[in-house]
Amino acid sequence: MAAPQPKLTADEVNALMRRAFPDAPQDGLPKTVAVAPGRVTVVRAYSPGMLRPGQLISGPNLMGIADNAAYALVLAHVGDQLMAVTSSLLMNFLRGAKPGDIHAEAELLHLGRRNAVCDVRLWTESPDRICAQANVTYALPLS
Amino acid sequence: MAAPQPKLTADEVNALMRRAFPDAPQDGLPKTVAVAPGRVTVVRAYSPGMLRPGQLISGPNLMGIADNAAYALVLAHVGDQLMAVTSSLLMNFLRGAKPGDIHAEAELLHLGRRNAVCDVRLWTESPDRICAQANVTYALPLS
Amino acid sequence: MAAPQPKLTADEVNALMRRAFPDAPQDGLPKTVAVAPGRVTVVRAYSPGMLRPGQLISGPNLMGIADNAAYALVLAHVGDQLMAVTSSLLMNFLRGAKPGDIHAEAELLHLGRRNAVCDVRLWTESPDRICAQANVTYALPLS
Amino acid sequence: MAAPQPKLTADEVNALMRRAFPDAPQDGLPKTVAVAPGRVTVVRAYSPGMLRPGQLISGPNLMGIADNAAYALVLAHVGDQLMAVTSSLLMNFLRGAKPGDIHAEAELLHLGRRNAVCDVRLWTESPDRICAQANVTYALPLS
Repeated sequence: MAAPQPKLTADEVNALMRRAFPDAPQDGLPKTVAVAPGRVTVVRAYSPGMLRPGQLISGPNLMGIADNAAYALVLAHVGDQLMAVTSSLLMNFLRGAKPGDIHAEAELLHLGRRNAVCDVRLWTESPDRICAQANVTYALPLS
Repeated sequence: MAAPQPKLTADEVNALMRRAFPDAPQDGLPKTVAVAPGRVTVVRAYSPGMLRPGQLISGPNLMGIADNAAYALVLAHVGDQLMAVTSSLLMNFLRGAKPGDIHAEAELLHLGRRNAVCDVRLWTESPDRICAQANVTYALPLS
Repeated sequence: MAAPQPKLTADEVNALMRRAFPDAPQDGLPKTVAVAPGRVTVVRAYSPGMLRPGQLISGPNLMGIADNAAYALVLAHVGDQLMAVTSSLLMNFLRGAKPGDIHAEAELLHLGRRNAVCDVRLWTESPDRICAQANVTYALPLS
Repeated sequence: MAAPQPKLTADEVNALMRRAFPDAPQDGLPKTVAVAPGRVTVVRAYSPGMLRPGQLISGPNLMGIADNAAYALVLAHVGDQLMAVTSSLLMNFLRGAKPGDIHAEAELLHLGRRNAVCDVRLWTESPDRICAQANVTYALPLS
C-alpha cells in the first residue's frame, strides 16, 4: 500500500514495548532496530532455551517473535496504543530455523480504523533463507 | 471424516511426548487426558509465568499448547513418528484467556499419507467459552 | 461457545440472501436447509460448470460456497445485517471433491460486537468424508 | 529466499495454463505478463460478471485469481507439472476491490520437494492500494 509514515522512532518503539511488558527479562524482548514507512526490522537475541529437539528454534518461539514484530510495527505506525491485541496469526514454517539471533522483517499490508494486517518474515541464517512467514492481524481499539 | 482408530493410549502418547522433549520440566508439557477416534483432549497446568499484561494467558503460550495438542493427536493416530513437524498453524484469538489450566480439544480433519490437518479449540473457564481456535497442519515423514 | 440463539429461520435466511444477491440465477445461491443455535447447514446444487480438470469441483467454487455458508450463518444469528463483509478466509483442501451437491456445515466459533469467526466443513460424497474445511471471519458493521 | 531461477517464460506459462484448463473461455484465465526469479505478475481482464452487490469484485473471484496466480508461479519455477494442487489458501480482504483489471503479484516464499508456499497481492486501482493478500500452498507431485 501507499506506505504510511511511522509516528515513532525505533527507540520510542522499544521504550513502549518495555512499558507493555514490564516483567520481561532485559533480553527477553525483541529489539526494534529499524523503522521505515510501513516497515520495521526487529531482532531477538538467541538463547539456547529456544531450541527444540533437533537443535532448531521451536515453533512457539518463532510465533512469539512474529507476534512481537507485528506489535512493534503497529505501535510504530499508530503510536501509543498499547491495547492493540492480536486477533489472528497464521504461521508457515518453511525450513528448520538454525540457532542464531532471530531477525524479523514486518510489513504493513493494511492499516485501517479497526485493524492492521501485517506480513512478517523470519530468518536466522541469512535474509535470503526465510525460515518462517506469518500473517498477523491486530485489532485496534476504536477511538 | 470417518474417524480413524487411534493406535496409542493416552499414557502411551504422554510417554512419547516425554521422549520427544526430554529437557522439558515435569509440568512443562501438556498432558493427554483422553484419546478417542479422531480426537484427543489435552490439559496444560496453569502457571503464572504464562500471563501477559492484562492478566491473560499470552498468545505464544496458547499457540504453543495448540501445537502440542495437534502433535499429541497425530502421535495418537500414526504411532511412534516423532519426526512429524508443524508446517502451518493458524490461530484465531477469540476472547481473553483467563488464568487457569488450559484445556485443548483437538480433532483430526484429515489424515493423509503426507500430512495431517487438525482443528484445536482451547479454553480455560469452561468448554462453552472457547478462548482460541487453531488449524494446525503437520507434515508426516514419507515412509 | 454457549451457542447463541438464532434470530432467523432458514426461510428467512434464504429470503435475505436473495435480497443480497438479486442478480444471482435461481440455482446460483446455496440454500440454507437448517438453522440451529450456533449452526447452519447449507446446500448448493451441483452443476457441471463447477468442475475443474480431473472431474473435481474447483477450489474457487468451494471457497465461494464456504463464504456463502458463513454469511448465511452470520445472518441467521445477527439478523438483517447485509453489510457484514468477509475479512479473511482460510481454506484447507483435504481431498478431491467428487461431483455432487455441495453440503456445508457452518458453526459459529465466536460472535462478537466487531466480528464473527466461523468454522465451515464441506462435503459432497458423505458427511464423514469432508473435502474441505474453512475458517471465515466476517467484520460486522458497528452499530 | 535466494530466488530460484524460473524454468519457463511467460508465454510458456500461458500455454501450459491453457492446456490445464482447455474449457476455460478465451478471456477466462489470468494472463502471466512477467516472470522473474521467484516471482510472476498475472493480470485477469475485468468483466462485469465479477461484481458483487456494492459494485465491488466478489471475494470468490479474487480468491480464484490468487489461486491461479500461485499456480502460474509454481509452473514457471517447476516446469510442466500440471498435477500440482492447492492444499491451502488464506485470503485477507484488505479493502473493497473497485472494478478494473485485476493484477496479481505472486512471490515464492518457499519451494521445497513437497510443496510451494506463495505470497500473492492483488490490486485493481494501483499497486500501492492492495485490495487483498493471499498465502497459497501448493502440494507438488512426488517424483
